[in-house]
Amino acid sequence: MTAIPSSRALPPLQTARVLAAEFAETAAERDLRGGTPKAERDALRRSGLLALSIPRQYGGLGASWSETLEIVREFARVDSSIAHVFGFQHLMLATVRLFARPDQWQPWFEQTAHKNWFWGNALNPLDTRTLSRKFDGWREFSGRKSFCSGSADSEMLIASALDETAGGKLLIAAIPSKRTGITLHGDWDNMGQRQTDSGSVTFERVRVEENELLLEPGPLSTPFACLRPLIAQLTFVNLFLGIAEGAFDEARQYTLKESRPWFRSRAGHVGEDPYVLRHYGEFWVGLESVRLLAERANAQLDEAWRKEHNLSPRERGQLALSIASAKVAASRIGLDLTSRLFEVTGARATHAALRFDRYWRNLRTQTLHDPLDYKLQELGDWALNEALPTPTFYS
Amino acid sequence: MTAIPSSRALPPLQTARVLAAEFAETAAERDLRGGTPKAERDALRRSGLLALSIPRQYGGLGASWSETLEIVREFARVDSSIAHVFGFQHLMLATVRLFARPDQWQPWFEQTAHKNWFWGNALNPLDTRTLSRKFDGWREFSGRKSFCSGSADSEMLIASALDETAGGKLLIAAIPSKRTGITLHGDWDNMGQRQTDSGSVTFERVRVEENELLLEPGPLSTPFACLRPLIAQLTFVNLFLGIAEGAFDEARQYTLKESRPWFRSRAGHVGEDPYVLRHYGEFWVGLESVRLLAERANAQLDEAWRKEHNLSPRERGQLALSIASAKVAASRIGLDLTSRLFEVTGARATHAALRFDRYWRNLRTQTLHDPLDYKLQELGDWALNEALPTPTFYS
Amino acid sequence: MTAIPSSRALPPLQTARVLAAEFAETAAERDLRGGTPKAERDALRRSGLLALSIPRQYGGLGASWSETLEIVREFARVDSSIAHVFGFQHLMLATVRLFARPDQWQPWFEQTAHKNWFWGNALNPLDTRTLSRKFDGWREFSGRKSFCSGSADSEMLIASALDETAGGKLLIAAIPSKRTGITLHGDWDNMGQRQTDSGSVTFERVRVEENELLLEPGPLSTPFACLRPLIAQLTFVNLFLGIAEGAFDEARQYTLKESRPWFRSRAGHVGEDPYVLRHYGEFWVGLESVRLLAERANAQLDEAWRKEHNLSPRERGQLALSIASAKVAASRIGLDLTSRLFEVTGARATHAALRFDRYWRNLRTQTLHDPLDYKLQELGDWALNEALPTPTFYS
Amino acid sequence: MTAIPSSRALPPLQTARVLAAEFAETAAERDLRGGTPKAERDALRRSGLLALSIPRQYGGLGASWSETLEIVREFARVDSSIAHVFGFQHLMLATVRLFARPDQWQPWFEQTAHKNWFWGNALNPLDTRTLSRKFDGWREFSGRKSFCSGSADSEMLIASALDETAGGKLLIAAIPSKRTGITLHGDWDNMGQRQTDSGSVTFERVRVEENELLLEPGPLSTPFACLRPLIAQLTFVNLFLGIAEGAFDEARQYTLKESRPWFRSRAGHVGEDPYVLRHYGEFWVGLESVRLLAERANAQLDEAWRKEHNLSPRERGQLALSIASAKVAASRIGLDLTSRLFEVTGARATHAALRFDRYWRNLRTQTLHDPLDYKLQELGDWALNEALPTPTFYS
Repeated sequence: MTAIPSSRALPPLQTARVLAAEFAETAAERDLRGGTPKAERDALRRSGLLALSIPRQYGGLGASWSETLEIVREFARVDSSIAHVFGFQHLMLATVRLFARPDQWQPWFEQTAHKNWFWGNALNPLDTRTLSRKFDGWREFSGRKSFCSGSADSEMLIASALDETAGGKLLIAAIPSKRTGITLHGDWDNMGQRQTDSGSVTFERVRVEENELLLEPGPLSTPFACLRPLIAQLTFVNLFLGIAEGAFDEARQYTLKESRPWFRSRAGHVGEDPYVLRHYGEFWVGLESVRLLAERANAQLDEAWRKEHNLSPRERGQLALSIASAKVAASRIGLDLTSRLFEVTGARATHAALRFDRYWRNLRTQTLHDPLDYKLQELGDWALNEALPTPTFYS
Repeated sequence: MTAIPSSRALPPLQTARVLAAEFAETAAERDLRGGTPKAERDALRRSGLLALSIPRQYGGLGASWSETLEIVREFARVDSSIAHVFGFQHLMLATVRLFARPDQWQPWFEQTAHKNWFWGNALNPLDTRTLSRKFDGWREFSGRKSFCSGSADSEMLIASALDETAGGKLLIAAIPSKRTGITLHGDWDNMGQRQTDSGSVTFERVRVEENELLLEPGPLSTPFACLRPLIAQLTFVNLFLGIAEGAFDEARQYTLKESRPWFRSRAGHVGEDPYVLRHYGEFWVGLESVRLLAERANAQLDEAWRKEHNLSPRERGQLALSIASAKVAASRIGLDLTSRLFEVTGARATHAALRFDRYWRNLRTQTLHDPLDYKLQELGDWALNEALPTPTFYS
Repeated sequence: MTAIPSSRALPPLQTARVLAAEFAETAAERDLRGGTPKAERDALRRSGLLALSIPRQYGGLGASWSETLEIVREFARVDSSIAHVFGFQHLMLATVRLFARPDQWQPWFEQTAHKNWFWGNALNPLDTRTLSRKFDGWREFSGRKSFCSGSADSEMLIASALDETAGGKLLIAAIPSKRTGITLHGDWDNMGQRQTDSGSVTFERVRVEENELLLEPGPLSTPFACLRPLIAQLTFVNLFLGIAEGAFDEARQYTLKESRPWFRSRAGHVGEDPYVLRHYGEFWVGLESVRLLAERANAQLDEAWRKEHNLSPRERGQLALSIASAKVAASRIGLDLTSRLFEVTGARATHAALRFDRYWRNLRTQTLHDPLDYKLQELGDWALNEALPTPTFYS
Repeated sequence: MTAIPSSRALPPLQTARVLAAEFAETAAERDLRGGTPKAERDALRRSGLLALSIPRQYGGLGASWSETLEIVREFARVDSSIAHVFGFQHLMLATVRLFARPDQWQPWFEQTAHKNWFWGNALNPLDTRTLSRKFDGWREFSGRKSFCSGSADSEMLIASALDETAGGKLLIAAIPSKRTGITLHGDWDNMGQRQTDSGSVTFERVRVEENELLLEPGPLSTPFACLRPLIAQLTFVNLFLGIAEGAFDEARQYTLKESRPWFRSRAGHVGEDPYVLRHYGEFWVGLESVRLLAERANAQLDEAWRKEHNLSPRERGQLALSIASAKVAASRIGLDLTSRLFEVTGARATHAALRFDRYWRNLRTQTLHDPLDYKLQELGDWALNEALPTPTFYS
């Protein structure tokens, strides 16, 4: 691997592009292998980009959300697993920022920036198998969680549990990944997003201190705190768009360099075939639509983030709608493009070494995070009834 | 009809909204009737909006293209025929601005602003039946033209003819509509856009003075002059979007007020039916995509217009691509919405008096101006080959 | 009008084709006019085809359902209003056959065949405004009904009312259309299916004799009686298919005779344009799919009809599924084709005199009879849960 | 592996089902592994099904084409690689039957039936790298071929070469796979159809006897001989349909057993969720359409085959159209279903061990055999111009 760039020297997007070019070289092979992309994660650590969204006063790079999400998209063009864990890094940081007290998140931010900590996710509100028992001044988390993206090779975990007494209230904590009682099973082996380490975690009587719990203002407590699920959703939008753009770029290179017109075509070369052009024209319209929807939502998130405690439920709701529209479009257009790209590259592009199917596999996997059908229902409830989406961990 | 607002008093968009509310009341009935919407055209004359895009120094309202096109869209929501002729008014003004000398277009602009002239279109480059014969200091146009939108009840016409000698060169002129030899046949009777007067015109030895010809710099002569077809295309985009938004609004009102859930639905009222919500959700995503594509193109046109003779072929090409993407999306999403809206309103919404079919009829008619298939091909040529669209009267 | 063919001489399909050729000549003009197609209805009367589905022993032509529905489709290719009332003629006859006693339907069949009676529809189970009061030996129907297709110019009506006492039980009767107290409002004026006379009817204390009520076995009482809604649904399928085929034929003739390749096309004539060919190829695949789905369902109906009281709920359910699949495909493919046909004919094909929009208007109107969304839900309930559709008046 | 069934005892379809059940158990694991499914090929040998389409007088099972293709579809439901090589077995047999003299194909048929020979494919007319040199009484084939499905572990090969002198005429031969000079590279490693051994073959001065050449009547020489590419295309249709049906079955089992309604759904269990039902409803309509199109084409092939030398070009053309329609529908509907199935199973269904993505990977790979765009063009040429498809190796 070449010299690792550091965002301390270059602008972050430049750093990201250098890294992305590195990641691209091994992305197909690592897709086959699965597992933890240790070298790439370490390169991210060294680059300083793990502190990308952390304000400068805490030692971070002070990037806005649009800048952060642009880099998620940049990585997703070549490696959507890395883009995912990188996006989740900043989602986890946002989680502590939004749900906890400044005296909690400020030190976490500083340490993350200082020590290049990677944060993993063990917050899965629909997986109710982890329970919390209260003791005097601390709690104990016990149980299992699935879909814990980025938990392997992480320094910190955002973990959740249901309070076994208080009506099953959701408790979220930030804890060191290596704490006694935490077992990362490393059992993620799925058809897509293969290097996200989204496997399961077991908590066996894990001690959680009171000041590790994110209680003030707490999860989804205020419009501002309710930005958390929107950051998650918008991370996916940028991820989906990046995958589609990466697929488009790779298909285009292949068509230009390798494809020939079908023997019944009147075209002298493939770049003049009317049907090939039609597919590319449709890809373009689709990508342009998603780009504008995603960029608008990114900019609106910046604005909402700046409003902080002045963010109104209505403003938060409007942002949720922008993100939902972008997500529906990004999912549908991306799935179409990543499947149809083979019609502009031809049969030889199915060669396993190319692993062109990974775009579809990655997108298909990640677009199942929460059902598109209910995202459309939410949008319909707005379009018809002018009802804003109810904040949940998925809306 | 209530008191006619004048843009001299109110901001133009406000004026347009007042007018649009007027037009809406009779739009369905006038769709049935067809013919020339004389009262509405006169209301437009009195409103001052015919001078909307004319710079203030020539007596106009000095609106930018985005402002002008926003008003096209505003009218299109309720009456796409009026939106069309209103959009073409400004397209005709742009035609003289872009193809003629300042000493030609400046007086035309001033008179238009002063006398509230309406400009009609008799420029149809694919209809080659009108020829021009050269005499000493003047020319004679003879022949026929189809699709002459807005020619009825107009003060001025943009007319074209092929030079019968000089290799069939296209000549374009601005002439008074009432000049001897011009017969407007008033024969527009089509399934949609029924009040656009897009019928045929006969030129019988019509005298055209040299200084009525748009020769310097002439048609499609420079990147700046090549904005003319793009203004036409972008006018359509805003028209299509307005139609779709009008259809959406009317469907929504009908669903909320008149529709009931199907007897097999579990929903208590229609606003909770999962399939009704799904349709509305899909409508919303579609409309949002088109809105962003259209608004970006509108803003880019403003910028290109400001660059004037500094506009590069590449910048003009990028604008053409933005407009083409918007047009494909607006056409497809609009056709889907205007047909599918009946599935959220139900059988009773087919009552003739409602004329809800006019949204589809209008859009279907206007989207045939030039084939979408070749717009997609153009976009594909960019997406695959990075070839910018060749300027023509349709690109 | 030329000499009226009679099915007594020619095979029915031949007779229908002669009639269809007649109807085609005036179909566009009658679509504009709306109202009752009196001359065409009388031609149908004289042709003997009103007795098409009546068994020979009652004086009819003894056609099977597939033969009957093939003629519905034949008419629908040129005039879907006539196809509708013609299909409903046989649906009404099936209604008395299935819901009443032989001593009731046999004389009705004989008189229909003998006197060429036209039957109209005033059975609309979701319109609950007509009530029935019981007297000694007779009943009185009072109230209003909407969507009474074919009620004008009919000799007999199938009318329904809710029993005002017995828990609102649905009562269906066959009564002369001219009976005192029946007012046909002639108020059908809708965007499509304009000559189906599907307006409203008022019953003002209309006397209904006991032996005019269809009580044994009664509505939807046995699997065999439950064929009634399936005959209605399958009539629509054949109607939709016929409309799409008629649109295809007319588009094809227009393309071949009138259309020219776009000026950017490399094709020498329109029949070689790659995009025009693509549209036609897609139309063909769609039509072929619907043809096979419809023809299978038609043949299965013949079989179910022959089984009569041996028809099992499962067999009836399987037929319902075949019809539902055909209906979804016919609706979707037909709506696409009738809207997209303009892309292969071009802008001039929007001329009002051609009335090419009537294919879409007719299909759009008729496909709203009952929502496609719930037809899909029904099919999904089978595909996933193996649950057969519950018989209702719409399933 | 359990006792191998033999078609000599059971009806062939029964035998196939027993085998398919065996294959299903290891299909996912073998998809991962790729390579030659030796055990399964041997099971096919022992079953007698390699002689399925061989007439009884030559020792075969005498199955019609519909019976043969039904078994291809049966295998494709669980293992589309095996279905492919099994279908190609019978395509290769048809090749010698159609292109060679009876004194050539009859012994090949007898030996195949007697010795359970497997035939592989090295006929790829668009790959022109293999040339034939003529010697006295024999020829020499030299060069390379790609996409040689089923060539590994085969007893016989259908190989083609271009005559290096006679204007590059295509020569096809049937030769033992083990003949000196033939190297099977075993280099098929693609994203789908992973056990079809569709890798490359090198011919190094391979001796081909005159009586191994298929010269009378020769390739694509008569309408009957022109059935060969149609059998190939129809094999794909049945393969695509089988894949889609297999995906549907597996999705359905998973939904019923494993999936839960989304937390925002009002459904008590997933089988009542309106959106899940909608997806299944759409899957059903799609599958039903393809089933009918495929079955019609299968039956028409039987009929065409029986006509033998009486088959007219028009009849052959009509069959080609039926197959093309089925192929377009099977490709599109299958690709949609195999991608969308995840929306009815949910995120956990992406687990690698399930390998549910193999349906899409297999279908996506195989549908690239020849471009759908040109199949649609062919159908359009019929639909618009009534031009029958020109016979080629792909039509």
